[in-house]
Amino acid sequence: MGSREFHPTDTVVNVKGVKIGGGNAPVVMAGPCSIESEEQLMSTANAVKAAGAQVLRGGAFKPRTTPYSFRGLKEEGLKLLKAAGEETGMPVITELMSEKDVELVAEYSDIIQIGTRNAQNFMLLDAVGELTTPVLLKRGFANSYDDWLNAAEYILAGGNRNVILCERGIRTFETYTRNTLDIAAIPVIHRLSHLPVVADPSHGTGRWHLVLPMGVAAIAAGADGLLVEVHPNPDHAMSDGPQSLTFENFATLMNGVQSVAPIGSSNRVPLRAQPIGV
Amino acid sequence: MGSREFHPTDTVVNVKGVKIGGGNAPVVMAGPCSIESEEQLMSTANAVKAAGAQVLRGGAFKPRTTPYSFRGLKEEGLKLLKAAGEETGMPVITELMSEKDVELVAEYSDIIQIGTRNAQNFMLLDAVGELTTPVLLKRGFANSYDDWLNAAEYILAGGNRNVILCERGIRTFETYTRNTLDIAAIPVIHRLSHLPVVADPSHGTGRWHLVLPMGVAAIAAGADGLLVEVHPNPDHAMSDGPQSLTFENFATLMNGVQSVAPIGSSNRVPLRAQPIGV
Amino acid sequence: MGSREFHPTDTVVNVKGVKIGGGNAPVVMAGPCSIESEEQLMSTANAVKAAGAQVLRGGAFKPRTTPYSFRGLKEEGLKLLKAAGEETGMPVITELMSEKDVELVAEYSDIIQIGTRNAQNFMLLDAVGELTTPVLLKRGFANSYDDWLNAAEYILAGGNRNVILCERGIRTFETYTRNTLDIAAIPVIHRLSHLPVVADPSHGTGRWHLVLPMGVAAIAAGADGLLVEVHPNPDHAMSDGPQSLTFENFATLMNGVQSVAPIGSSNRVPLRAQPIGV
Amino acid sequence: MGSREFHPTDTVVNVKGVKIGGGNAPVVMAGPCSIESEEQLMSTANAVKAAGAQVLRGGAFKPRTTPYSFRGLKEEGLKLLKAAGEETGMPVITELMSEKDVELVAEYSDIIQIGTRNAQNFMLLDAVGELTTPVLLKRGFANSYDDWLNAAEYILAGGNRNVILCERGIRTFETYTRNTLDIAAIPVIHRLSHLPVVADPSHGTGRWHLVLPMGVAAIAAGADGLLVEVHPNPDHAMSDGPQSLTFENFATLMNGVQSVAPIGSSNRVPLRAQPIGV
Repeated sequence: MGSREFHPTDTVVNVKGVKIGGGNAPVVMAGPCSIESEEQLMSTANAVKAAGAQVLRGGAFKPRTTPYSFRGLKEEGLKLLKAAGEETGMPVITELMSEKDVELVAEYSDIIQIGTRNAQNFMLLDAVGELTTPVLLKRGFANSYDDWLNAAEYILAGGNRNVILCERGIRTFETYTRNTLDIAAIPVIHRLSHLPVVADPSHGTGRWHLVLPMGVAAIAAGADGLLVEVHPNPDHAMSDGPQSLTFENFATLMNGVQSVAPIGSSNRVPLRAQPIGV
Repeated sequence: MGSREFHPTDTVVNVKGVKIGGGNAPVVMAGPCSIESEEQLMSTANAVKAAGAQVLRGGAFKPRTTPYSFRGLKEEGLKLLKAAGEETGMPVITELMSEKDVELVAEYSDIIQIGTRNAQNFMLLDAVGELTTPVLLKRGFANSYDDWLNAAEYILAGGNRNVILCERGIRTFETYTRNTLDIAAIPVIHRLSHLPVVADPSHGTGRWHLVLPMGVAAIAAGADGLLVEVHPNPDHAMSDGPQSLTFENFATLMNGVQSVAPIGSSNRVPLRAQPIGV
Repeated sequence: MGSREFHPTDTVVNVKGVKIGGGNAPVVMAGPCSIESEEQLMSTANAVKAAGAQVLRGGAFKPRTTPYSFRGLKEEGLKLLKAAGEETGMPVITELMSEKDVELVAEYSDIIQIGTRNAQNFMLLDAVGELTTPVLLKRGFANSYDDWLNAAEYILAGGNRNVILCERGIRTFETYTRNTLDIAAIPVIHRLSHLPVVADPSHGTGRWHLVLPMGVAAIAAGADGLLVEVHPNPDHAMSDGPQSLTFENFATLMNGVQSVAPIGSSNRVPLRAQPIGV
Repeated sequence: MGSREFHPTDTVVNVKGVKIGGGNAPVVMAGPCSIESEEQLMSTANAVKAAGAQVLRGGAFKPRTTPYSFRGLKEEGLKLLKAAGEETGMPVITELMSEKDVELVAEYSDIIQIGTRNAQNFMLLDAVGELTTPVLLKRGFANSYDDWLNAAEYILAGGNRNVILCERGIRTFETYTRNTLDIAAIPVIHRLSHLPVVADPSHGTGRWHLVLPMGVAAIAAGADGLLVEVHPNPDHAMSDGPQSLTFENFATLMNGVQSVAPIGSSNRVPLRAQPIGV
């Protein structure tokens, strides 16, 4: 159901008036990795809004490699996020980790994010397939394009057509970067599927100084948007500080995004016009 | 809590009298990928028992790459599995995929398997950490040893000390095999952790003709057991036929396992006696 | 010697007046994978020159996965290449595969290419280190950034400072693309090294329809140039047809390159101005 | 020419009476990574011979990641190796890195080793294809089985039928081990090809404490032999100390090899008797 053969024209996901996909201007979703406090979140929300972001991101439930790390403010974080979104007039996105929290997260968030570690948690995909809330599905860090599109199929098959795919880097032998951001995923998904696809250069690189060039490169390759971590003071972030941008660097990224958006958009068109073969 | 520095002596997981780990004879857990019918399951249970298997495996909830494949008999399958275990006098193991099914699966199964796609589904790990039922935790197919041991930590931190680790192959560039079975994981885990570690040569290779040599190799390297897919008629299996053994080939595998078990056991000893450093 | 700590300012490689690196406009090197005939080569040379390419590429010695494939026109190919370069006023680049052909290739070619399969053929690297001819060193398809920079060190240590690095894709588990073009390599190398770095989106993807978006993305990320396969009739190419561009598509790529070149150039600057640490 | 369809019965490579492949007892080739001195080499040669090794290995030309590391004693090393082989009555094996050294190395060595970094150095493969000296071809660390067999084809096509394949670990995301030793390569190659295949657990793991279990596991899976690094004092080795065995640990390994050799041999037989298809 996600394939272009099944549905040739682009799906546009409309989130409270923000349109993602289908050749619309790239939508940047930005905010802190973890929601830490009202002040941290509000200052970030105001800064990213001013720079041109259209969606506010923030983590309330955090998947962490070890159980002993900070795991998020949970419902308290969701409330702060919803309030910050309303105050700044931006829809919000946050991660859902548990089948038991589906209703809770759906109540507070405008887009539900499924993280890379749950990219093949099929029961969770089944659960969000029953909603109408848009779902941003990250690629599993060792999932092929086929695996990823098949995971999206779980959501689509449940009746939820509002699926956004997110390339966030794959695991390779290279250790300098946290992951290898596979930018080719963007034109490939545009060829194989009608769903919008965005990139996460923060997790895709793990280093703030790569977020700018890689974010711009993803847009140039035709990405429908970006997911970016921004923090008032990355050195003191409770998670993912090394890959978070300062407000100033985020504004520079936004300038770059706007300047390459036209070429990114033109990159999307011929792909659809050419034969599928070769 | 899973590290050998924290707990120097081996953990032995006792499943209804079957002892896994700590230098006990290797425990082979065998049965069909999917439970398809009472007849299919009982004939397999009898055959693997006769050949020396000590635990019966069978899938009732099946994670499938696409939602359109057979997804298991669910509770009906669990009932058949429990009955087959009781009739043949073997404890049983089956996979848990959903936080909502924790109690259901715990009621029917003697070991709860967490599959590779849920290897970092931290909410599910939290949930089984609250049980006393032994848990077999498969390595995520792109998880490092550290990731895997940290995932086990979620279960241990919840209070459940009965954790068995299972190497089931990692994803690499090689496509001839379904995965690359990383046999080095066995001596590495024995060095880093006190938990038992078994190998799954069926998923680890994806080809029946490799299950025998790789199963024997894993035992030679010190594995505390194997998880093996066996089917009365692999050509007609509803899932994983190409990697399932016939009864006859499974019996040959068991002969191999018994013949290398002493060297495997001796391989475990010096590792513990030597310094941790290089 | 290749590190930025050793030599903070950018190396600019000057090839008969074409300047590569140091913030100069991106240099596109284009031409056929294999030189097949004078007519094929000349028509391609004229077309890529007209579209804005500055260097002519063409393979005379071809590394092929099997010994039974077409292995190139050898010295006859070199002669055709030199003539085509002279006629169109472009410097030329071709691959060197053998220690025995160093002088021969250096006689005909303005840049010597070391391919991915010889990326750690240290004797060959030693040999080209003794020349003054510029060397384009492709990244080994499973080489880390460190491996690659250390390989460059073999050439630099021999006295040849005219080294250009080329990202051409790494081997990952993804099979839809021939390789995974690691665009992050570009800003990373610019941070770690003073050497110019270009990208090869043809080998990096293996599919013509990805060459355009990935070539543009690489330039947006700050690449100092591209290496692109172009053929008058890709369907009839003797090698690499599926990844070769037609003349028309190559012209479209060049337009994209020019439109993102300014942002790519600006992406290079802040990297040098910021601290090396995280 | 290397495929089993072309030549159904096993190739046995006879090196001065030592028979490798075809179900003969496993042949262990052991010695220091680098030849450092006559004393170091002779003491090692005597120790490995006493423990049951049949071939003496030793590096005279060393491929090193950086040009500033010790690169071997070169011809002096070859002379020491030949002398040590003659004195202990063992054939010797050493690595060839350069097309220019083919005759030199062939004069001193009974088996010519092609290392992983030259596994697709096709000109070097062409060159050794013209000899009759047996060639041990290591798998490139990112080469698929197909790539590897095709590389062997270069040697076979030249007329040299004495090719031994060597699995030495592939590059994966796991960093605890230097490489991931892909033991499945052994039964796969036995199925696809008639050539003998040995394993190198020293490079395959990079850690001495893994060499014993992995060496034994490779033999259990049917390997025709092992290549093992042994040093009188690994802490002071000029290269690869962390993966070199002491004399005592090597003797323990040899005991393990002998105890699993029968099961390894039996693992080879049914593979040939079964159909090639799944």
